[in-house]
Amino acid sequence: MTEIKIKTYNSESLIHCGVGAFSTFVHALKDRQLFIVTDKNVYNIYGNLISETFGGASVKIIPAGEKSKTVRRLTEILQAMADAGMKRGCTLIAFGGGVVGDIAGLAASLYMRGVGLVQIPTTLLSQVDSSVGGKTAVDFNDVKNLLGTFYQPEQVIVDPMFLNTLPAREIRCGLGEIIKYGALDEDIYNKLLKNSDNLYNFEFLEEITSDCIRCKAAVVLKDERDLNGIRKTLNLGHTTGHAFELYYGGKSHGEFVLIGTYYEMFIAKTLNIAGGRYYENLISLIGKVIKKIPAYDDIEQAALSAKFDKKNEEDAKISLIVPKKEGECQELVIGVEEYIKLLAECRDTVRAGI
Amino acid sequence: MTEIKIKTYNSESLIHCGVGAFSTFVHALKDRQLFIVTDKNVYNIYGNLISETFGGASVKIIPAGEKSKTVRRLTEILQAMADAGMKRGCTLIAFGGGVVGDIAGLAASLYMRGVGLVQIPTTLLSQVDSSVGGKTAVDFNDVKNLLGTFYQPEQVIVDPMFLNTLPAREIRCGLGEIIKYGALDEDIYNKLLKNSDNLYNFEFLEEITSDCIRCKAAVVLKDERDLNGIRKTLNLGHTTGHAFELYYGGKSHGEFVLIGTYYEMFIAKTLNIAGGRYYENLISLIGKVIKKIPAYDDIEQAALSAKFDKKNEEDAKISLIVPKKEGECQELVIGVEEYIKLLAECRDTVRAGI
Repeated sequence: MTEIKIKTYNSESLIHCGVGAFSTFVHALKDRQLFIVTDKNVYNIYGNLISETFGGASVKIIPAGEKSKTVRRLTEILQAMADAGMKRGCTLIAFGGGVVGDIAGLAASLYMRGVGLVQIPTTLLSQVDSSVGGKTAVDFNDVKNLLGTFYQPEQVIVDPMFLNTLPAREIRCGLGEIIKYGALDEDIYNKLLKNSDNLYNFEFLEEITSDCIRCKAAVVLKDERDLNGIRKTLNLGHTTGHAFELYYGGKSHGEFVLIGTYYEMFIAKTLNIAGGRYYENLISLIGKVIKKIPAYDDIEQAALSAKFDKKNEEDAKISLIVPKKEGECQELVIGVEEYIKLLAECRDTVRAGI
Repeated sequence: MTEIKIKTYNSESLIHCGVGAFSTFVHALKDRQLFIVTDKNVYNIYGNLISETFGGASVKIIPAGEKSKTVRRLTEILQAMADAGMKRGCTLIAFGGGVVGDIAGLAASLYMRGVGLVQIPTTLLSQVDSSVGGKTAVDFNDVKNLLGTFYQPEQVIVDPMFLNTLPAREIRCGLGEIIKYGALDEDIYNKLLKNSDNLYNFEFLEEITSDCIRCKAAVVLKDERDLNGIRKTLNLGHTTGHAFELYYGGKSHGEFVLIGTYYEMFIAKTLNIAGGRYYENLISLIGKVIKKIPAYDDIEQAALSAKFDKKNEEDAKISLIVPKKEGECQELVIGVEEYIKLLAECRDTVRAGI
């Protein structure tokens, strides 16, 4: 089992990572006043485990999926907390994937200006990425994560046992973010290359998960509030990925991150930022997860969704984080027109099967 | 003009205090993308000043009064910000009293996980207290300030010119919090005594306002997140004041704080915590603002509202901050039954005109 710590000025976030983490660390929570947020899918599978582990604690079950990340659902959670008589010393447990973690984290940060928060991520994506680092959010006005707070969970309990019940698509989704970390960190990159035929192996996933969390923790420590540009690097692949996710939908977030990374790497290559073996290796890793990169019709229109992405401040510019070489990426700010042109070129290349 | 600074780990809050603060410091804001939140009453008086000063900036006007501190109004403000195309680099200006400051501050802390916030308090209460220190809130489930965040304004512009348009009742409301600071700080206490026939004089109010802000800033610096008990002292008079405010209504928040302080001081005296000349002086200061302390019927029922006040963690106990001697207060935790009994005794004493 690994322990990773994110210590900031007014919080300390402890991440327990590995087989047995759940059974080892939930017991210490039992004496607290607990409130559990989960979703229907997770509750169907783990309802019994939740009852056995947390006894009479109040449980709020939200519908599964990104569509639950709304102000309405958030208000429902807060109402349920008030109805259950939660006090300032209570602890909210976010038991589920990224959506549950994001919205429950926001509820915990708002209720009485902040109560205890423990993340128990049950998907690979949330284990490897979204449960760590304190970003909470709901979607608003058709913009992903437009509303939220920075609020560190006091504990994150990352137990690979939850991966056993995940559909393959959810594993692919998590691998999307894992490969993103490969583009940010040389050690993760090398480990991914060495295990490229082994990506779906659970022991490998357990190991690489703690590597990714360690990488993220180091970034968060340097830029908790996303102010100095360092945390922004975690958005690699996300500008285009989010735009496609908004416009086309139908795939998981992690898959869109990979497709976004693919398109953005094409841009990086065309502009002579990345190339050679490093480029080929990353593309080949993406290919292990996304068998067929989509050649989107209407890509010019989809690209415009990126303009409204909140990471972009200037109307006429798009900011991309692109891989450069092993363990190094850079921010690329280009005009919207050039961005659209390059995306279309990439699409045409994919379509031609080059 | 006075400048007071609250520097915490990830923020610096500058408070400009004095005649001319508005005209001096708003100009530097003009180059930013601005969004202004105000209320109907304030807009009726200062609509022209807002237009002249901030030109084409978007303005969201909410209805005046505590009833606007709801999730619904908060969502409306956030929607208006999104509709106006606010970016992460924008600045929200809270132009108004405590309600505007609390709800607009919460909106600023949530939009894109936090945008710039400038408080321009226009009431004595908000100048002296609520605009400083970073507590934001809306009411929820019939509990005052149940939802909120800690979010420091980058600037607070405290200009006494706004007091000229305030009704006398609003001045009384602010004096409620000012006398509370007198019970916390010896210098403020002495200044109040020396000017006890002069409390409504504007020059005196200007001076005492910056004293109170300095006192609050020192408290906030030691306990920004209300975690170690120090910030709790600012709740002097508030436990009982909030309970009466919730149950009886019909007076301003500051008046209820004073009435609450009166009742809680009776408790402190009965339990031999405070007494003598200090006690008499504070009671006499309260009398300068509240001519007639109410002898409430039904006080046993009203007291139960305090149980649900979020400052109280344990069901069967009530926590009060009570004045002890000059510049010193203490927390008093007593059982609900004893609390009710003592409140009723105080009421009977008031009724008997003793």
